[in-house]
Order: sequence, then structure tokens, then C-alpha cells
Amino acid sequence: MPPLVECVPNFSEGRRTEIIDAIAQAVRGHTAVRILDIESDPDHNRSVFTLVAPPDALVPAMFDAIKTAAGLIDMEHHRGAHPRIGATDVVPFVPVRDVETALCVALAQDLGRRVGDELGIPVYLYEEAATRPDRVNLADIRHGEYEVLKAEIATNPNRRPDFGPARLGPAGATVIGARAPLVAYNVYLTTDNVEVAKQIARAIRHANGGLRYVKALGLLAHGKAQVSMNLTDFHKTPVHRVVEMIRREAARYGVGIESTELIGIIPQQALLDAAAWYLQLDHFDARMILENRLAE
Amino acid sequence: MPPLVECVPNFSEGRRTEIIDAIAQAVRGHTAVRILDIESDPDHNRSVFTLVAPPDALVPAMFDAIKTAAGLIDMEHHRGAHPRIGATDVVPFVPVRDVETALCVALAQDLGRRVGDELGIPVYLYEEAATRPDRVNLADIRHGEYEVLKAEIATNPNRRPDFGPARLGPAGATVIGARAPLVAYNVYLTTDNVEVAKQIARAIRHANGGLRYVKALGLLAHGKAQVSMNLTDFHKTPVHRVVEMIRREAARYGVGIESTELIGIIPQQALLDAAAWYLQLDHFDARMILENRLAE
Repeated sequence: MPPLVECVPNFSEGRRTEIIDAIAQAVRGHTAVRILDIESDPDHNRSVFTLVAPPDALVPAMFDAIKTAAGLIDMEHHRGAHPRIGATDVVPFVPVRDVETALCVALAQDLGRRVGDELGIPVYLYEEAATRPDRVNLADIRHGEYEVLKAEIATNPNRRPDFGPARLGPAGATVIGARAPLVAYNVYLTTDNVEVAKQIARAIRHANGGLRYVKALGLLAHGKAQVSMNLTDFHKTPVHRVVEMIRREAARYGVGIESTELIGIIPQQALLDAAAWYLQLDHFDARMILENRLAE
Repeated sequence: MPPLVECVPNFSEGRRTEIIDAIAQAVRGHTAVRILDIESDPDHNRSVFTLVAPPDALVPAMFDAIKTAAGLIDMEHHRGAHPRIGATDVVPFVPVRDVETALCVALAQDLGRRVGDELGIPVYLYEEAATRPDRVNLADIRHGEYEVLKAEIATNPNRRPDFGPARLGPAGATVIGARAPLVAYNVYLTTDNVEVAKQIARAIRHANGGLRYVKALGLLAHGKAQVSMNLTDFHKTPVHRVVEMIRREAARYGVGIESTELIGIIPQQALLDAAAWYLQLDHFDARMILENRLAE
């Protein structure tokens, strides 16, 4: 099967459909790129595109999309609940099929250089593409959002971009990088006591000593205590291990797992790994799946 | 996605590759039909083809394959370890994607009529396509194999075929029908005591009061007690329920499951159902899987 890369750009427009359509149109000009999903949130005033394409098709498509967004979105007038620093706020490349992370890093560098040089937009490389440790986390790069970055970019050497000028126009700055596929996963507990969810989130998340590729929060959702997670590398910290750890921690509070929930799109492998683990299906091979044979 | 039917014809030739190739060639003449797999067993002297195609492509392709096999395989001289009554021994149609069982029954009837009328080969309809209860099970239709059927077909009204003449030529007879996708699944126990595997097989299989769509045997394989199964409808008796029932029965003998094993090709849904059950992933939808979106 041909190699495939996913790209999940976030644009700072979630209300004016004509602008979202114009950005989509810029992508559609590249026929090798497929738009799997566009989700727009008016409160966040932000749209998340899910694109999939052979590796060499994504950089020109994203260049055109970023150019279009820069011409239509003015960060001086942008308001929304979600943190942001640019018209095209963040562009992660994600390996999907027969692709190494290193290739996604190279795509991020190529795109970053073109956006910086040709569009004059400051670019920060993040996650696997980061050029310094304090740029691995998106939240650190976006510190203070557009408004603070605008004030600091010219004078604070720590905020000097990886590509493009050290000055912010109305298109703001763009964060570009490479990361493993992210799985957004929620676990509902058999209690409405949100403190239990918070305790469990603390126990399992990386930030507090838990599993390496787990980000977690305890929330109250639909009247149930919920452990809300981003699993940032399901190959290394698989879904089933996280669910079973939550089950054990919950039992310590005398509660159980009521149900779980997947948000968005998940690579098939994440669920096949869970099936094989629970079923003790050793030596399982994805070619044993009829649909995979058909897709060959 | 376009509807797809699987067809798993068994031919009574597992040694002479030129004959197997000739049958494959007859199928390849129909470009809409994909040959996913051909497995030939010299001891059984039998070859199993796995074909997948849109529904309307399979009947003409299988007609040509049966005609080719009839011209090249002489049942008078066929010897092999596996029970058989014809050159083309059995032809099940299996719904794979967006297809009802009723359509597969109709395909079996169409093919059966053409084979009976145009090739003069007696045809028995089985499983979901059976016209009487004593023809649901393949083993009942094949009783006494080619040699006994040849003696009885003209005189025993119970052996009158559904299509074609009540007389057996050197191509023998063919069993055609429709069935749910079959999953061949083995469970290895943490013991070499085959009696435990036999007791468990008896407990879980339909024939002795167990789960409806489970056929099971206790064997010794690779030095381990093994419960060897055919799961004949994984939608109604899912893999995870069978594995967990075996786990419980094994615990009663003080043993556990060492590992499990899938034989051949499995529909994706069977493993996704297991993942969703163990993970308590309610409201799961196959469209949440990236690869399924890509295949749309």
C-alpha cells in the first residue's frame, strides 16, 4: 500500500463559513490530498481539518492553505475561547501508513521554511520537529497567545522563530511539527463524584508520574465522573493498558468503569492491538484481516 | 463502499498444480473477481480458493470454474484424506460488506440451477440455502462421500439433488449454499492435559448444549492442550464471549489460557467487536476508523 501521512491543521476561524470554504478550496486544488473531516467550533472560533495524502502532496497543499488563511484571517480582530497565535495556528504531520516519523519531521521543516521565506510568517517547529526542548510542547510556544507574542517576538531571543521574520503581521505565527497519531479517549466512571476522576487522572498521567504518553483530566460530563485523555503514542502506551489501569485505580475507590468513548478518528491498529491483547491473540498479523487484504 | 460477497469454493485437487492453475485461470477471466488466497493440501488432495467480488460477478466466475474442474478432475480416480463428493465439492457464498444473507442464498440458487441445467452436475443446496432440514449440514449431504452417493442417488429419494440429474458422472456432485463468515480460532491452555481441552470443548460447543455458533474439539497441539473451534456466526456468538467462557471453564480445572490463535482470514468486525467489548467502548462506529474513512 502507498505511504500515507495525515495532517491536522488548525485555523483560527470557526464562524465565517465562506472563509473556511476558501481554505478547503485551496486544499482541494491538490487532488492527491483527501479532506477526511472539517470540524468548526464557533466558541473556539477555530476549525480543525483532517487531511490524508501521500507525503509529497501535503507540503504544497498546506502552503496554499496557509497562504489563503493569511489573506482572509486578521488576528488583530480574532476572538475565541481556544489559545492561538496565528491564522493558521498549528500544523502537525502524523505518520499513518508505511511512513517514519523522520519523514514527517522533514515535511514540517520543508513547509516551515517555505512559509517563513515566501509568506513572511514566523514559524515555530514543535514536538518531534522541535529545535529546542522548550519548543516541544505546543502550550509553551503559544504562551500569552498572539497578543503577548506580538510584543515579545522582536525583543525576546527565546521567541525568535525557526523560520521567517521576528515580527508579527495580522496573520500571526504558525506552529508546525510532527507527532505520533493522537487518540482522544474518555472513560466514564460509575459515580458522579468528580474527585475520583481527578484522582485517577493524576495517577495515570505522565505529568504526575503516570504513563508516559497519557495526558488526563478529571471532569464531570453528562452527570458522570469522566477521565478525559489524550493518548499521544498508542503504540507505546496502548489504549487497553490505560483502560485497565483506570479500572484498577477506580476499584480502589469502590467504583468501576461504566463505559468508554472515542473522540474523532482512530487508526485501526489501536483497536486491533486492544483486541489482540485481551484475546491473548499472539502472532496476530494485520494481513489476517479481510479488509486489509482487499485494500492491498 | 460497494457491496462485496466472499466465495470459498473447495476443489478436489491438491496435488497437480496445472489443474489448480487452470481453475484459477477460469476465475481470472472475470476481472471483477479477486482471488485473495489459494491453499492446496496434498494429503487432503483438495484446494480451497478465497474469492471476493461484487455479488453479480461471482455466479459467472464460479460457473466457469466448476466447468473447468469438471473437465479436469475425475472423481473415479480421486483419493484424499478429506471427505468429498465432487470435483467442485462445496461452494459457500458469504456476505462480507453491505450484503444480506438472502442475497447470498439467491446467488447459490442461481449458480446451482445453471450448474445443474447446463453442466448436468447434481447440486445440493446447504446451510442458509438448504431446501430441507437434513441438508443444512454439509456432513449430512456428503454422507458416504462420492462412492456411496453414486450408488444411492438414483434410488434414494432423500438424495435427489435440488438441481441437475439424479445420476453421478465423473465430476460427482456439488454442494452450494450461503453461510455467515466462519472464524477458525484456537485456544491454547496452560496444560498438556488434553482431557481438560476435551471437557471445555464439550462445555462450549453447540452440539452438547453450549453456545449456538460454536463447533469445538479438544486436541493436543504443539505439546499443549488446545480447544480448536469454528465460530460459524461471530455476529451472534462473538469471539470475546467464547474466549471468556473458555477462560472460566479452564479456571475450574486450575488452568488458564496461554494464548489464542486465528487461522486464515477474519473480517475486521470480529476483532473490532472484541476491542469494543473489552474496552467497554459503547457507541463505537466503524467510521471512526481512519482506514475505513480512507476506503470510502
